[in-house]
Amino acid sequence: MSSRRNFIRNATLGVATATLAPLVNKSESFYRDEFEHSKDLPLGIADWTFVNFDIPQSIQMMQRLDIHHMTIKNFHLPYDSTKEKIDEVIKQYKDGGISIYGVGVIYMKNKDEVDQAFEYAKKAGVSLIIGVPEHDQIDYVEQKVKSYNIKLAIHNHGPEDKMYPSPQIAYDLIKNQDSRMGLCRDIGHAQRAGVDPAKAVLKYNKRIFDMHIKDVTNAAQDGEAIEAGRGIIDFPALVKALRKIKYPGHCGIEYEKDMKDPLPGIAESVGYFKGVKDGVA
Amino acid sequence: MSSRRNFIRNATLGVATATLAPLVNKSESFYRDEFEHSKDLPLGIADWTFVNFDIPQSIQMMQRLDIHHMTIKNFHLPYDSTKEKIDEVIKQYKDGGISIYGVGVIYMKNKDEVDQAFEYAKKAGVSLIIGVPEHDQIDYVEQKVKSYNIKLAIHNHGPEDKMYPSPQIAYDLIKNQDSRMGLCRDIGHAQRAGVDPAKAVLKYNKRIFDMHIKDVTNAAQDGEAIEAGRGIIDFPALVKALRKIKYPGHCGIEYEKDMKDPLPGIAESVGYFKGVKDGVA
Repeated sequence: MSSRRNFIRNATLGVATATLAPLVNKSESFYRDEFEHSKDLPLGIADWTFVNFDIPQSIQMMQRLDIHHMTIKNFHLPYDSTKEKIDEVIKQYKDGGISIYGVGVIYMKNKDEVDQAFEYAKKAGVSLIIGVPEHDQIDYVEQKVKSYNIKLAIHNHGPEDKMYPSPQIAYDLIKNQDSRMGLCRDIGHAQRAGVDPAKAVLKYNKRIFDMHIKDVTNAAQDGEAIEAGRGIIDFPALVKALRKIKYPGHCGIEYEKDMKDPLPGIAESVGYFKGVKDGVA
Repeated sequence: MSSRRNFIRNATLGVATATLAPLVNKSESFYRDEFEHSKDLPLGIADWTFVNFDIPQSIQMMQRLDIHHMTIKNFHLPYDSTKEKIDEVIKQYKDGGISIYGVGVIYMKNKDEVDQAFEYAKKAGVSLIIGVPEHDQIDYVEQKVKSYNIKLAIHNHGPEDKMYPSPQIAYDLIKNQDSRMGLCRDIGHAQRAGVDPAKAVLKYNKRIFDMHIKDVTNAAQDGEAIEAGRGIIDFPALVKALRKIKYPGHCGIEYEKDMKDPLPGIAESVGYFKGVKDGVA
């Protein structure tokens, strides 16, 4: 058995999860070192998955799933929360064994919303915002990224979206900007836009800061969310690509089927992704 | 994308599941041909998983899991059932999209119990009994296998078991008998007995008629049931071994943790096994 598999096992059994710390204020070379150390594309959860559940219910589900990393949405932590409230919520997750490595997805239509997003992320102590800034806010966002040293990952939607129907549009906007301007790759939406997830990983490489992992029934606009492994996304190719670029971030499961009773579907998706990771090793 | 993966996808999406018929009254060469056709180690469920649930609840869970094959236990179909009752129960599963490919695990302490098991299997229309015959019943069981043309797969337990603490003991009893005498490999119990599941697959090869797929926390007697992928079993090696011997049977998930609320854990196990299958492809 490879040491990587041993590591995965230890991590899965809760022995070594402490090494999978959130990616806070670390240089790129550190990220690559961290990948070398963990090599396991740690799983997380995108909080949208839990839109119909409160924080204790969400924590309970993540504990059952053995998932310990997440990005948080405003329905669990409103943007206008006081620092005290933010600390309280983050402690609530931490006490449940969950670390929050990013905030979002946050829509930013104007400077005020950009300002609010960065203050919110700073108070939350994260170094990653998953965001959807209007195109005309991108330069202002870049200024904020530099002054706060907080990364911005633009989240793509699918072909029906006017602002970011595919990751390429986001990439073109940020590719010549500060290296902390990047992407949150939503592979389901991208696949519906005809973008092959593995090829996109190789293409956008170091600009990928977060992933929304899901599967879809069809590589077209009408593709619907489905348990990972039952749809059309080629996960083995995706995992190989992520390993090839030494992707240092989290793979955030975002499950959007059966959203009022999601646990079995999330569990199947988590199991599938772990199985692919072990299988392609 | 390989045609195998396409097949899996189609099967998973319910398009081609009809080709994964139960292994009833078919010659060995047919099995190998069927493997060549499906190549996907079709998943099933061992009914013990649902010991705390009635038939409609079990069907509902299997539908949610997209599992369409199972072996049935006597708590859902008593041994002394009339032919009418058996037909009714099997129709109930069939109407739910579930085919029953075997009965058991059935304990056989004496000739009467052997007689009953084979009559029961015959009435149920299956060609496979997963059983635990007393050692002194093995020769009588072989006679029955020949006269009924129904296969017998001896199920191993773990090191605490007096009769079949490991698959080797069962194998030694049947290896020179009729080729329809074989094993149901319980990889969790075997791993607890120190038996490497992949090596055992290569060793017992054509005598393996069914599999109980699970994971355990430890390769020792005190190993406990856990979601597949979280424990110590090397599933990629297992899948490679099953493909190498062109195992034609089902991989029956038997989930024994959280048995009063098993769906998330079964789902994670199912997802994990599918992920490993796709990953090692």
